[in-house]
Amino acid sequence: MRAVHRTIGVIGGMGPWATLDFFEKVLRLTPARRDQEHLRLIIDNNPKIPDRGPAILGEGGEDPTPALVATARTVEAAGADLIVIPCNTAHFFYEPIRRAVRVPVLHIMEEVARAAAQRLPALRRVGLLGTRATVATGLYQKAFRPQGVEVLAPDTAGQAVIDRLIYAIKAGEAGEALRAEGAAVGRRLGEAGAGAVVLGCTELPLVLGEHNLGLPVFDSNLILAQAAVRLATSPQPLPREVGA
Amino acid sequence: MRAVHRTIGVIGGMGPWATLDFFEKVLRLTPARRDQEHLRLIIDNNPKIPDRGPAILGEGGEDPTPALVATARTVEAAGADLIVIPCNTAHFFYEPIRRAVRVPVLHIMEEVARAAAQRLPALRRVGLLGTRATVATGLYQKAFRPQGVEVLAPDTAGQAVIDRLIYAIKAGEAGEALRAEGAAVGRRLGEAGAGAVVLGCTELPLVLGEHNLGLPVFDSNLILAQAAVRLATSPQPLPREVGA
Repeated sequence: MRAVHRTIGVIGGMGPWATLDFFEKVLRLTPARRDQEHLRLIIDNNPKIPDRGPAILGEGGEDPTPALVATARTVEAAGADLIVIPCNTAHFFYEPIRRAVRVPVLHIMEEVARAAAQRLPALRRVGLLGTRATVATGLYQKAFRPQGVEVLAPDTAGQAVIDRLIYAIKAGEAGEALRAEGAAVGRRLGEAGAGAVVLGCTELPLVLGEHNLGLPVFDSNLILAQAAVRLATSPQPLPREVGA
Repeated sequence: MRAVHRTIGVIGGMGPWATLDFFEKVLRLTPARRDQEHLRLIIDNNPKIPDRGPAILGEGGEDPTPALVATARTVEAAGADLIVIPCNTAHFFYEPIRRAVRVPVLHIMEEVARAAAQRLPALRRVGLLGTRATVATGLYQKAFRPQGVEVLAPDTAGQAVIDRLIYAIKAGEAGEALRAEGAAVGRRLGEAGAGAVVLGCTELPLVLGEHNLGLPVFDSNLILAQAAVRLATSPQPLPREVGA
């Protein structure tokens, strides 16, 4: 059978370092010995998309929906056969994005929940490290509910540390002390009963991992890259609604 | 004055690791404390573009011109205000690409020669490490000629080492021994009179640098990223023909 190679469209720039990390993960996950065996990606690294957090939390930010929809249409028009959004918080706006294009759009929470069920089928409680906005959307809670997995989020003080860490990563200034504080927040979720931790913000895998959390980790950006490569190389026809 | 932020279009995938390296260099070169201060990039990582080398050397490869032109038009249609090609060898096809779009297309050899003149104005001889095809095109020789800089290329055996190294990087298997051989080829250019070395293939900065060459190095991918960021943030109108 001829190798199928679909083009992966990336609604990127949220933030740019997370988009770069996603791109690198796709390259690492692709078995290729020469250029032509790699996958085509159309990346719209569009950091001009307004900040997702304030808009979700009703803190007066500009609505990012029009920019997200326009970026989805750009990568579709450029040739994407499937679309990913390497930003957890942006999935609050998943429905309008999905409806704006004809190609499937992967849903990062659904992919993480699916990967968790495969890797740790006996998991009952999972910790969630992400932006305050991502936690507030309840999207991980919704994705894990059918599997009977409870989602544990940090307390208010812990969440404030994680938000500071995420914005520091975006600013390129996440120092050792702040990283250690963030890791401690994750370890406390383990002490509270979480059997694993979701890195539910695509900036966090840049500084957190099993090495400093001491728990199994679900890296949402890696899981999204794995799902994208699997679908881009699948001999099966693509389902219209990948995340549904 | 309002900050000008133009969109950088990238004709990528030649190879994908060099495109990733270009993307990372642009992010590092952009002073940004939050997502929205970064630059928008439209990256068509299109590794399906046929191999440039055999086509240039008359060794029977498929002509990459149609795919290069189509990729240039894709990034232009997606919103690029200027276009870069992070692949030296592909610049053999610069003219048809430039003619296919309305926005400026940077010329990597012109940018390297300009940067070399600024950094080492007394330079008389420069070594060139690149694919056999890039050396054969004479594009670096042509770019450096107006400055009276002579381009020294490796001998046949040395060139064969560099070609093996480049294709090994693309295959993800450039081991220590081959890297050391490649560095030795570069150092021999210094012994032959070169006052600096051009890394004239965007894969080479991934394994070679001043640390193992012992000579000033012009990293063509870094210089291209610097030129792109400079133009993308310049308050001046863009010249139509950046590389001319």
